[in-house]
Amino acid sequence: MFFGKVIGTIWATRKIPALNNLKLQIIQPVDSRRLPNGAPIIAVDTVGAGVGETICYITSREASIPLPEPFAPVDAAIVGIIDRIDLENF
Amino acid sequence: MFFGKVIGTIWATRKIPALNNLKLQIIQPVDSRRLPNGAPIIAVDTVGAGVGETICYITSREASIPLPEPFAPVDAAIVGIIDRIDLENF
Amino acid sequence: MFFGKVIGTIWATRKIPALNNLKLQIIQPVDSRRLPNGAPIIAVDTVGAGVGETICYITSREASIPLPEPFAPVDAAIVGIIDRIDLENF
Amino acid sequence: MFFGKVIGTIWATRKIPALNNLKLQIIQPVDSRRLPNGAPIIAVDTVGAGVGETICYITSREASIPLPEPFAPVDAAIVGIIDRIDLENF
Amino acid sequence: MFFGKVIGTIWATRKIPALNNLKLQIIQPVDSRRLPNGAPIIAVDTVGAGVGETICYITSREASIPLPEPFAPVDAAIVGIIDRIDLENF
Repeated sequence: MFFGKVIGTIWATRKIPALNNLKLQIIQPVDSRRLPNGAPIIAVDTVGAGVGETICYITSREASIPLPEPFAPVDAAIVGIIDRIDLENF
Repeated sequence: MFFGKVIGTIWATRKIPALNNLKLQIIQPVDSRRLPNGAPIIAVDTVGAGVGETICYITSREASIPLPEPFAPVDAAIVGIIDRIDLENF
Repeated sequence: MFFGKVIGTIWATRKIPALNNLKLQIIQPVDSRRLPNGAPIIAVDTVGAGVGETICYITSREASIPLPEPFAPVDAAIVGIIDRIDLENF
Repeated sequence: MFFGKVIGTIWATRKIPALNNLKLQIIQPVDSRRLPNGAPIIAVDTVGAGVGETICYITSREASIPLPEPFAPVDAAIVGIIDRIDLENF
Repeated sequence: MFFGKVIGTIWATRKIPALNNLKLQIIQPVDSRRLPNGAPIIAVDTVGAGVGETICYITSREASIPLPEPFAPVDAAIVGIIDRIDLENF
């Protein structure tokens, strides 16, 4: 899983039908200090993340993510909202 | 999913038969501000995207993308056309 | 497999249920000389790695990783703790 | 799919048996203007590409690539030879 | 497949049981001129590669790699030892 921050949403009226009814969020990947790291991606959200929250996401869809459309072509998903990161000196 | 922009098309008369009848487009990956980000790729298009449009694409084929040839060796597909991107300050 | 170092843990109370009861660790990818190499990731730990230890991890889940929740959406796992790296001149 | 150029061949007498009888080519990934982009890779060729030709390749093997050994551990394959690239100004 | 060079071995007494009895090697990815390219990885070796040899490896495990433990969580494998690379001017 990777660290990211929810930074916005997209609007897409023309899309493949399997994406209907999915909540899509724009994720800015971040490092463990919450600084931007690479280009934003689009992920499906099933945990109710809001803009500004730090989340963790996966980049290949696993069977266990509960989606309204089980065969949706989703390659990134928010799986948790990060409350706190504890880092040791290293 | 990733952000991209349709920038052109390819011509390939010698190819594996499973690619026949697929509409292939050249995608320039872009960041959330629509600036180029990395080298262009080739994606199959099933949503009717045109050159110049901002789209979102996936990079591993999912079973639900409706293709004329279900076993086509496609590793990138346009799944939606972006109408608008709403970004929060962050 | 890749080299990494365990550098901390995360706290996430809101997450998909399949992640409950998994031990998640923050991994700093390192090169073979144990220097940081890229952004930290989050991996599931089934071998009991502790903060500060050098480990090896995989980035796509394989069926044989024993997890309490077999369908957990996990895309990185610690599979071994490195005792020693022997490098030849090259 | 990605753009590449065939730049050479490899000789490997010791290899896993499933690679026997496969035509392997060295591919230099290129951008849409055919300039080198990253390190060369090795891909299986089923379309008869020759050195110097611009091709498109996929990086995960799909079931429909006709190979003499169906279970060959191949993670890149040439799937078409590019005749022409049409790019719009953007 | 990618080019690499065997540069050493690892010692890991605490690991998931499925990794027992596998020969693991440290691989330095190289470009086609055999110069280092990125951070070393750990790969399973079934072809008897020795330190200093140039090899080709795959990064997702395919069913046909003969392993003592068929469900081992291996995401990189040496599949051939390179005798010679023939490159054309380009």
